[in-house]
Amino acid sequence: MAAKLSLSEVRREYDVLKERGMHLDMSRGKPSEAQLDLSNPMLRVFDDGNFVSENGMDVRNYGEFKGIPEARRLFAEIFDVPAEQVLVGGNSSVNMISDSIKRCFLNGAMPGFVPWTKYGCVKFICPVPGYDWHFHFLDTMGIEMLSVNTLADGPDMDEIERLVKDPDVHGMICVPMYSNPTGITYSDETVRRLAAMETAAPDFRIFWDNAYCMHHLYDDDRDTLANVYTECKKYGHEDRVLMFTSTSKMTYAGGGICAMAGSLANINFAAGLIRYQLVTYDKVNQLRHTRFLPNKGAIAAHMRKHADILRPKFELVLERLEKELGGLGIAKWVTPKGGYFICFEAMNGCAKRIVALCEEAGVKLTPAGAPFPHGIDPNDSVIRIAPSYPPLEELAQALEVFTAAVKVAAAEKQA
Amino acid sequence: MAAKLSLSEVRREYDVLKERGMHLDMSRGKPSEAQLDLSNPMLRVFDDGNFVSENGMDVRNYGEFKGIPEARRLFAEIFDVPAEQVLVGGNSSVNMISDSIKRCFLNGAMPGFVPWTKYGCVKFICPVPGYDWHFHFLDTMGIEMLSVNTLADGPDMDEIERLVKDPDVHGMICVPMYSNPTGITYSDETVRRLAAMETAAPDFRIFWDNAYCMHHLYDDDRDTLANVYTECKKYGHEDRVLMFTSTSKMTYAGGGICAMAGSLANINFAAGLIRYQLVTYDKVNQLRHTRFLPNKGAIAAHMRKHADILRPKFELVLERLEKELGGLGIAKWVTPKGGYFICFEAMNGCAKRIVALCEEAGVKLTPAGAPFPHGIDPNDSVIRIAPSYPPLEELAQALEVFTAAVKVAAAEKQA
Repeated sequence: MAAKLSLSEVRREYDVLKERGMHLDMSRGKPSEAQLDLSNPMLRVFDDGNFVSENGMDVRNYGEFKGIPEARRLFAEIFDVPAEQVLVGGNSSVNMISDSIKRCFLNGAMPGFVPWTKYGCVKFICPVPGYDWHFHFLDTMGIEMLSVNTLADGPDMDEIERLVKDPDVHGMICVPMYSNPTGITYSDETVRRLAAMETAAPDFRIFWDNAYCMHHLYDDDRDTLANVYTECKKYGHEDRVLMFTSTSKMTYAGGGICAMAGSLANINFAAGLIRYQLVTYDKVNQLRHTRFLPNKGAIAAHMRKHADILRPKFELVLERLEKELGGLGIAKWVTPKGGYFICFEAMNGCAKRIVALCEEAGVKLTPAGAPFPHGIDPNDSVIRIAPSYPPLEELAQALEVFTAAVKVAAAEKQA
Repeated sequence: MAAKLSLSEVRREYDVLKERGMHLDMSRGKPSEAQLDLSNPMLRVFDDGNFVSENGMDVRNYGEFKGIPEARRLFAEIFDVPAEQVLVGGNSSVNMISDSIKRCFLNGAMPGFVPWTKYGCVKFICPVPGYDWHFHFLDTMGIEMLSVNTLADGPDMDEIERLVKDPDVHGMICVPMYSNPTGITYSDETVRRLAAMETAAPDFRIFWDNAYCMHHLYDDDRDTLANVYTECKKYGHEDRVLMFTSTSKMTYAGGGICAMAGSLANINFAAGLIRYQLVTYDKVNQLRHTRFLPNKGAIAAHMRKHADILRPKFELVLERLEKELGGLGIAKWVTPKGGYFICFEAMNGCAKRIVALCEEAGVKLTPAGAPFPHGIDPNDSVIRIAPSYPPLEELAQALEVFTAAVKVAAAEKQA
C-alpha cells in the first residue's frame, strides 16, 4: 500500500534542488576515471621491447586470427572450457555478438543449416529488462523480440519453454550474471532448464553475454553462475550456446579485448568465416592484456580494486533509496552483489516522468524504456541507475534529485 | 619467342640450391621486423598520462563510435574529403569492408534499397589478379565473382562498362593504387570511367580498398591516383563509392587503425547501423596513432623510413629477375613504384609447378592461383612475389631458388 504524499510538499523539495543547476550524468554504465587509472600500468608492458607471444609470433604482425595462445588460455579459464573452444577478438564483445548473429543470417547457424535470411520470420527471446544495445541491434536485423519477464532467479522459464515450441524462435540473448540492468544472476536451475529444454528450431542459439562474470562487489557475498556450456552438453545440446565476455570493465571501456566460446563445432565454423572477414584481430592489445592480467587470479585481484571503488557508490545509492523511499510503497529496487546497475521500479506510469524531472533538474538518466525492446516499457516503471561514473559527492547530489523526482511523480499519480 | 633451355642443366642448378635445405618465406605481404620497429615510439605517447582527445573525451571510456575528431581529420586528409564523411574504425580495413558488404546484404546499400539477400543473385566485378582475401570473403557471401583483366592503367574498362549493364552486378572490389598484386595504379581515365559509367543496378557500389595510398618507394617517381569520390560526384554518382584504408602497413600489421569514407548519405547510413553493432571502436589506439602520426605530412615522413627498408628489397628482386630471366622470353613482370608486391607472370601452365618447386626447395610463396576468384588462375601463370618480410640476404637466396624454379618449369614445358 502506497503512502499518500503531499504533491505541494514534494514539489517544493524538488524545486529547491532544481535551483542548484546541476549537471550530473548517471546515464551509462561507464567506469569512472579512478577505475580506468587502475589499468594504466598495462601501457608499459612493452617497455622491454619484447613483442613475441608464447608461440614465438611477433604480435605486431599479421597472423593468428583465433587469438594468441595466452589470451585464448586466459579466457578459457574464465569460461571454464578448453582453450581450443575460445576465439579471442577485438575491443568489443557487442561486436562479436552482432557478428555472430549476422553469420547466422548470412551463412546459417552452422554447416547444414539454412541462413536465417531464408526464413520468413526470426524471433528472439529477450529477457526484460535487458541491455538496450542488444535490443537496438536485434531491431536493425529485423528480428522480432519476445519479451520475457525476469524473476528473482532469472527469466520466467515456464514462458521460455512455451515460446521455444514456436519454430520461428531461433535465439535468445541475455546477460546471465549481475544482469544489465536487473543485477540478478540466473540460478542453477534456470541455467539447467535453458540447457535442457527442447526447441522447435534445430538451430536455436543462446547468445550468452557474460559481461560481468568477474564483477563482484563483495569478497564474501557473491553470486555464482553455472557453466551453461557444460549443462547444454549434458543434454546433448552443446551447440546451443555461444558465450561472450570482454575486459571492457576490467581495463578500458572499448579499449580492451573480448572473446567468445562454445562447442568446437561452433567455434570452428565461426573461425572459418572470421578468417576471411578480417586478417587478424589486434594482437598487440591481446598481448598487452595478457602480460598485465595473465590469468584468472590476476583478474580477480584487479577486480577487487574496481570493487573498492564501486562498492561505496552502490551502497550510497541503496542507502539513499532506503532512507528517502523505504517503506513508502511507491518504489522497489534490487540490491545487486555485482555488475554495474541498480534496477529501480517506480509506480506504473511514472518512469518517463521521473527521468524527465531529473533531466529538468540537471541529472541525466538512461531514458525510461531503454531496457525494453523498441524502448517501450509496458508498465513505464523501470529505471536503470548507473552509479559507476560520477564521483561519490556528485552521486549523492544526483540521488537527492532522483528521490525527490520519484516522490513528485508518485504524488502526481496519486493526485 | 622463348629461349630453349636445357632441362638437365637448369635442373642441376635447382638441385644444388635444394640441397641447401633453406626455410624462407615470401608468401605474405607482411612488414619486416625493422619496419615494425619504426613505430615503437608510438607506444610511449601516453607516458604523460594524458588520455583526452581534442574534444575533451577520455579515450579509455565508451563513446564516439564514429572515431575521435583528430583521427577523422587525419583520414579526411588522406582521402581528401571532409571529416564528417569519414568513419574511423578498428584494426582491420578488411573487416570494415566485409562489414560494409554485409550491411548491403542485410540492410540494403542505403535507405530505400532492397537488402541484397532479397536478390536471387549478386555479382561483383573483380579485377584480376587481385587480393586473395577479398575473393575469399566474397565467396563466403555467395557472391558470383566476374574476373576482369588488369591492364597497364587499371582493369579493362570496356569489359567493366559491358558487365555493369547486367542488373545483377551490384558491386566491384579493387585495390586501385600499387595494387595487390599487380603493383599498378589506376589511371585518371580509368577512375573517370568508373565514376561516369551507367550501371543497371541502382545500388551498385565500388569497394575501393586504398591500402597502399601512402606506400611510395621513391620520392621522385610516384604514381598518383585520382579522387574517385570527387569524380563520382561530378557524374551525379556520389553514393557509388566507399573508400577504405588503414595504418596496417604504416604502424603495426593488424595492430593499427582503419577508416572508411564516402558520401554523407553513405556514411550516415553506415554510422546508424555501426552504432548498434558495437559500442565504440578502440579509441585508445586511435589516439595513440594520431599522437604519433598527427597529419598526412607526418605519415609521409614515416613512410619514407619504410621505403628506405623496402626499396632495396624490391630492387634486389627486380635485378635478379632481370639478370637470371631477362631476355629469355619465359617470363614477364611489372616494376612497381610502391606497394608490397611484384607481380610475376610465367609461361602459361607453369605457376603451380614453380610454387611447388620452390616449396620443395624450402621457399614458401603465395599459392599459385591465390590472386584469382576461387584460387583458379585460368592461365596458371601468375605468381605474387612478396619481398617485404625476409631480410635482404634471405631474399637473395630465395630469389636464386625462384629463378631456378622458373627455368626448370619452363624447360619441362618445352620438353
